[in-house]
Amino acid sequence: MKSFTEYLTFTTKNRREYLNITDTIETLVRKSGVKEGLCLVNAMHITASVFINDNERGLMQDFDDFLETIAPHEPTSRYRHNRTGEDNGDAHIKRTIMGREVVVAITGGKLDFGPWEQIFYGEFDGQRPKRVLVKIIGE
Amino acid sequence: MKSFTEYLTFTTKNRREYLNITDTIETLVRKSGVKEGLCLVNAMHITASVFINDNERGLMQDFDDFLETIAPHEPTSRYRHNRTGEDNGDAHIKRTIMGREVVVAITGGKLDFGPWEQIFYGEFDGQRPKRVLVKIIGE
Amino acid sequence: MKSFTEYLTFTTKNRREYLNITDTIETLVRKSGVKEGLCLVNAMHITASVFINDNERGLMQDFDDFLETIAPHEPTSRYRHNRTGEDNGDAHIKRTIMGREVVVAITGGKLDFGPWEQIFYGEFDGQRPKRVLVKIIGE
Repeated sequence: MKSFTEYLTFTTKNRREYLNITDTIETLVRKSGVKEGLCLVNAMHITASVFINDNERGLMQDFDDFLETIAPHEPTSRYRHNRTGEDNGDAHIKRTIMGREVVVAITGGKLDFGPWEQIFYGEFDGQRPKRVLVKIIGE
Repeated sequence: MKSFTEYLTFTTKNRREYLNITDTIETLVRKSGVKEGLCLVNAMHITASVFINDNERGLMQDFDDFLETIAPHEPTSRYRHNRTGEDNGDAHIKRTIMGREVVVAITGGKLDFGPWEQIFYGEFDGQRPKRVLVKIIGE
Repeated sequence: MKSFTEYLTFTTKNRREYLNITDTIETLVRKSGVKEGLCLVNAMHITASVFINDNERGLMQDFDDFLETIAPHEPTSRYRHNRTGEDNGDAHIKRTIMGREVVVAITGGKLDFGPWEQIFYGEFDGQRPKRVLVKIIGE
């Protein structure tokens, strides 16, 4: 069994941002040398997400609108977590809805994706360096 | 390490539908010959879901009602994604809430499930062929 | 390839409760002897969740408030599932939002976690024994 580990760091310009990281993950799969296996990609911070969806700008805005409707950033007093001095209570909930991680099959040395699947890093409390873990196991 | 890959195709009659695919996955686990390992099952389209819950018809209606309440199909103008000519902006959000994938343990050659766990394919923009990936790794 | 399987049982005092199970999972990772691999932790019941977030009491209350707002327990007549004689329709939806499972990388014999990542068992219909599966594969 082969295994491969890499840490990516993202610092977004905005508090909330959605980055397409598919090409980076593809490159790491090739680098790992794994032909058949699984690729785990997860946010290492609890106010960010890794998820798979369509690379369409309007859709990312729809996700953002949806998340702001059900777990708005303000008023920050809405969240007990913010009594600790934080202002990111909403970000913990937003990331939970979008998901911490994806597990993607590797087949024939490539991410085994449907036609529109792309991997996104979803940031909900950005403007500082945050990490993503890529772990690949297989043969 | 053994690995096994299979693609399933589903064409639902309705726009939204929930299919119990547990027996099919069980059959593939046996076919794979893997006794101890992991089984990934994921939608390959970004408007469909694979999730685990109870095989109870009322519950599936509850999920559908819940999803329609928080991310309704209409008015389709509600979603920026639909400005591309699509009408499935809601389906991208519904699938995100229900989840893209499940990872299930294989123990003793079987899906290692609790008493009520069943695997469902959740379709949110159906009436056309869409694929599900099954990837099994282990020994 | 090594594999390791363990079943944990939790009986919460309250209907809804959030338990930090990180230390238990860490202990099992050491016991497995796996140095590089993946660790799956999933609820085996369909009204409970395993998720990763911050170990902060106010945040857990925020999650609980959020879940009660979008899928309240009462009135129980709100859910068709409860026509079967159950009163836990809400718990199926709450668990779906929080997620059934987490997959965590194992690197150098340890859970490969960011600074704040902790594993929680989320119970939404407790006061009875319910199981969590831990499956570890790797080398």
